[in-house]
Amino acid sequence: MGSRREVVHKVNFSDPRSFASSFKSDLKETFFPDDPFRQFKNQPPLGRAKKAVQYFFPVFEWLPKYNFRLFQYDLLSGITISSLAIPQGISYAKLASLPPIIGLYSSFVPPLIYAVFGSSKDLAVGTVAAASLLLSSIIGGVAPPKDDPTLYLHLMFTATFFTGVFQTALGIFRLGILVEFLSHSTITGFIGGTATIICLQQLKGLFGLKHFTSKTDVISVIHAIFKNRSEWRWESTVIGVVFLMFLLLTKSLRNKRPDLFWVSAMAPMVTVVVGCLFAYFAHGEHGIQIVGHLSKGLNPLSIKDLRFDSKYLSATLSAGIITGILALSEGIAIGRSFAVMRNDQIDGNKEMIAFGLMNVVGSFTSCYLTTGPFSKTAVNNNAGCKTAMSNIVMSLCMMLTLLFLAPLFSYTPLVALSAIIMSAMLGLIEYDKAYRYLKVDKFDFCICMTAFLGVAFISMDIGLLMSTGLSIVRALLYMARPATSKLGIIPGSAMYRDIEQYPSASGTQGILILQLGSPIYFANSSYIRERISRWIEDERGNLNSKSGELEHLILDIGGVTSIDMTGIGMLTEVHLSMRKKGIKMIIVNPRREVLEKLMLSSFIDAIGQESVFLSIEAAVEACDFNFNESEQNDWSRH
Amino acid sequence: MGSRREVVHKVNFSDPRSFASSFKSDLKETFFPDDPFRQFKNQPPLGRAKKAVQYFFPVFEWLPKYNFRLFQYDLLSGITISSLAIPQGISYAKLASLPPIIGLYSSFVPPLIYAVFGSSKDLAVGTVAAASLLLSSIIGGVAPPKDDPTLYLHLMFTATFFTGVFQTALGIFRLGILVEFLSHSTITGFIGGTATIICLQQLKGLFGLKHFTSKTDVISVIHAIFKNRSEWRWESTVIGVVFLMFLLLTKSLRNKRPDLFWVSAMAPMVTVVVGCLFAYFAHGEHGIQIVGHLSKGLNPLSIKDLRFDSKYLSATLSAGIITGILALSEGIAIGRSFAVMRNDQIDGNKEMIAFGLMNVVGSFTSCYLTTGPFSKTAVNNNAGCKTAMSNIVMSLCMMLTLLFLAPLFSYTPLVALSAIIMSAMLGLIEYDKAYRYLKVDKFDFCICMTAFLGVAFISMDIGLLMSTGLSIVRALLYMARPATSKLGIIPGSAMYRDIEQYPSASGTQGILILQLGSPIYFANSSYIRERISRWIEDERGNLNSKSGELEHLILDIGGVTSIDMTGIGMLTEVHLSMRKKGIKMIIVNPRREVLEKLMLSSFIDAIGQESVFLSIEAAVEACDFNFNESEQNDWSRH
Repeated sequence: MGSRREVVHKVNFSDPRSFASSFKSDLKETFFPDDPFRQFKNQPPLGRAKKAVQYFFPVFEWLPKYNFRLFQYDLLSGITISSLAIPQGISYAKLASLPPIIGLYSSFVPPLIYAVFGSSKDLAVGTVAAASLLLSSIIGGVAPPKDDPTLYLHLMFTATFFTGVFQTALGIFRLGILVEFLSHSTITGFIGGTATIICLQQLKGLFGLKHFTSKTDVISVIHAIFKNRSEWRWESTVIGVVFLMFLLLTKSLRNKRPDLFWVSAMAPMVTVVVGCLFAYFAHGEHGIQIVGHLSKGLNPLSIKDLRFDSKYLSATLSAGIITGILALSEGIAIGRSFAVMRNDQIDGNKEMIAFGLMNVVGSFTSCYLTTGPFSKTAVNNNAGCKTAMSNIVMSLCMMLTLLFLAPLFSYTPLVALSAIIMSAMLGLIEYDKAYRYLKVDKFDFCICMTAFLGVAFISMDIGLLMSTGLSIVRALLYMARPATSKLGIIPGSAMYRDIEQYPSASGTQGILILQLGSPIYFANSSYIRERISRWIEDERGNLNSKSGELEHLILDIGGVTSIDMTGIGMLTEVHLSMRKKGIKMIIVNPRREVLEKLMLSSFIDAIGQESVFLSIEAAVEACDFNFNESEQNDWSRH
Repeated sequence: MGSRREVVHKVNFSDPRSFASSFKSDLKETFFPDDPFRQFKNQPPLGRAKKAVQYFFPVFEWLPKYNFRLFQYDLLSGITISSLAIPQGISYAKLASLPPIIGLYSSFVPPLIYAVFGSSKDLAVGTVAAASLLLSSIIGGVAPPKDDPTLYLHLMFTATFFTGVFQTALGIFRLGILVEFLSHSTITGFIGGTATIICLQQLKGLFGLKHFTSKTDVISVIHAIFKNRSEWRWESTVIGVVFLMFLLLTKSLRNKRPDLFWVSAMAPMVTVVVGCLFAYFAHGEHGIQIVGHLSKGLNPLSIKDLRFDSKYLSATLSAGIITGILALSEGIAIGRSFAVMRNDQIDGNKEMIAFGLMNVVGSFTSCYLTTGPFSKTAVNNNAGCKTAMSNIVMSLCMMLTLLFLAPLFSYTPLVALSAIIMSAMLGLIEYDKAYRYLKVDKFDFCICMTAFLGVAFISMDIGLLMSTGLSIVRALLYMARPATSKLGIIPGSAMYRDIEQYPSASGTQGILILQLGSPIYFANSSYIRERISRWIEDERGNLNSKSGELEHLILDIGGVTSIDMTGIGMLTEVHLSMRKKGIKMIIVNPRREVLEKLMLSSFIDAIGQESVFLSIEAAVEACDFNFNESEQNDWSRH
């Protein structure tokens, strides 16, 4: 320690930044944390224009460099994902209570839009089960599809339109922050709960039932199955179980032999084809229900079908917004996790705009909600896709299907679709993740289970909201009760660390060193005051047994990232109360934002610049010096 | 640095605490931050029982030591505050559209209860203007006092009862945390806005108007004044202005000569007495309206008058809860700030129970909402009160008044009451505080102005809720965008500090040191990931111009107080992406809670215990060592 005494390092008390500059930097951190315009710096005007086009149309980033070798890969992966897109499209459209052809339409137009605006190389566009069911449960609540299928269809387009507008707006106004409020635990629980109720719903197809409930909760579904047990058909069940076993087997094969991924990718298509043949030869007997009429032709325009009547507006709006957030959080998370594997980066706000535009255009062309589903994206990546061209290939395959092959799929048995949905859903219930939450963080486990049970037993939107609410309450609790710790010096070093974490660390006589963390503001300043006074009482209790008195309180606020007026008021109060007790208060290593406010509010003037140090070491040294001095004074007076 | 190399200080990787013990400590920090049972430790059973009685009935803390000398002080201050209690009681009861006698009743019973259960020595119990007006505006909305004064009165008792029950429950369940969500800026703005509208309302009395609006917002009030301008009486205005000047003069006298505080304390009583004499001799002519009949006698029981009909339940409940929180935050803040001056401490949760009990008992005995008003408490403290005995003295004075003097006050002119209220309210508009907010923290200023303008132009409860909502949004933004900074070493020291704050600090070649602060969780983990990757890009951009490559990323997480599963997932993702880029990630100084979770989730296993260091210094040393080693390897390979 002694060797450093000659050089005194001071806290930087230079004038605070102007309001404009600190406000600008705050705004930038809030809305442009990824600094998207960095690439435009130091560029000539022409280069800037080119960069701007590439920024708004990511397709121009890869298209100029595109070649035949890359196309070979994209062709293969595009065909592979379209073989998945056909059965999934039909299945999820059934799940959304929509005509099956809508599912095929939805894999034609949106992938084209995404290929132009999207920045992920792996993402394969398609419909997803959870959002399909969620849309259907909200819209079906105000306009049951059985009563008026056309109205229901049009409202679904409208909800998709709202989803698109909302997603685009989030992207343009850089409000990705909203999506961040869905925590991993909420999403895990929500997807698990949704998968559970979707699986249960498929029992309808598996048992060949004709009547069922439109509700989604576990109890209604089980009740409906037992109520309609007279309609059970064993033929349907046998076929369904065989298909399911086949699909699950190919999945487990993929897990063991990743190079055989194409077996499981093709399996749903095989199931559909075999099912069609079977149904064709069974002539609709033995209770095997089929999808029914599928007409040839490309997507008809649906822009005139959007309905904005006030009667349904709140349902379509809320369905649009909730599914929009959900679809974004799934799509962006998936795009990002594949980008990490490529050592690549995707821009969340750009992705939002791409998703938004594809849903807006989709709603004009008879498509319903699409996003980047995990299964399709994983298959796309496995099949070796290189660019978004694979989405274009898939789109062209779908076009050919719609133009020529669609009627063939009208023989698809419902039970085959149920088997496909069930096998997809069973993989989405992540027991292991929930167990990991239970092991590491009980509160995250509660958040996850709230979403799971809420979705399974109440309804999908309520479950999602409850779980998000609980996450926010937990975050507020985090804020309201930040950890404080007493520091001591680790013997043989100059490091001050938490004495509970490092029991070898020891305190210094007459000095209490506390570390405060996280922002200090209204929600936690009462707590911090109470906690400081408790530390002081404890310290005094300890000292009473020994000789000596507490003379200095050192607050290490290096971890305090910001402070508000209530927090400054609290520090002032602590300072006054310490002065009454004869204890000198010292501040160590304030960050810039905090120091600026402490200076502006004249707190620093109140405690004196000489009470602010850059390191605990320097502060302790100064205290020791004072201490010795006062002892010497005592001595000289005798 | 070299001298320390021989001693290597390790991070403490000992087994995480059990769930039970960490949960217990979390619960304790959340609900018992002040450790109220500390004093019971190491006590014999009898001592413990005595302490317990003293804990639940703070009166037994001071009563045994009470003596005649202390009583002299308390007698004087008790008489002083009761001279204030009579005019204030009548005024605020008028403000709450209640019979004036209720205001006198409310200064009789509640102070007795507080004297037994309250822990503050200075707090003087009484009614307050803001809560009176708020109660009246909520209850008056469902049951206008003009239509059915008895119903209105009974609903006011019921709301007071709910306030009491709510406050007691908060205290018992130690939920003081709810009150902490009212920030100083919200309270400043709310009180300022309320004072403004109350002042405007007093123009009714000042102009001698007979008709007025029951709404509280500025526009309705000004409109009502102009609409009824035919009723203006100049006599009333002259008297009112004279009274107001007198009251304001005595106030400014107190500010200049604090020892003459009793002049301003007695001034309202003088105003009332002079007003009574004047009104008595004017025989109700010249448009001087008087309070009217005040009957002798103590508080009648009102326990049977409480009304729990479902029709009014939501109004009484919400009025009870909102005013309950408001009254607590005012009462506790005031009690605490006076306790700090005495170098004393008050227990927030005990205060809540005391306030709650006094309101419950109050609602049974014809009192309405009481708390610890600032003006009365300040006068009490100035008058030299020593214990809660001054409340008992005031209560006895009120008893004598109710028994013998009440009818005399029936001549009190309304204009005198208006002058008293206005002079009290003008002191509550704290321009200087708002200006300070504007100077130090613009966001706090916005929160304050939201409350002020919301109260003034919309309504009191909406203004309060809007401002609290904004505070919480700000807190969530704080959480979602925690500051990160790049550290560099300060020349001639071993300290690593923010290079923007300390421009002399310089980076180390090939190593990027980042400091993360505040908790890491779902709301900010996307941001932190983006921010880290931006730092890396910047650093690489810098390095490209020089020679050399980025080889190490050091994350100082000493300021991270907690982490959740989403945060751990983010760190894992960053780790993977760094590995792809060939950058080694190092963690420095994790706190105990964070380290425990990182170990449980096997993040530490993934990065290796050797990548976790106790100080930046040690981490940099290790990096340099690796660096030299790999250079040597390169060299030996040539």
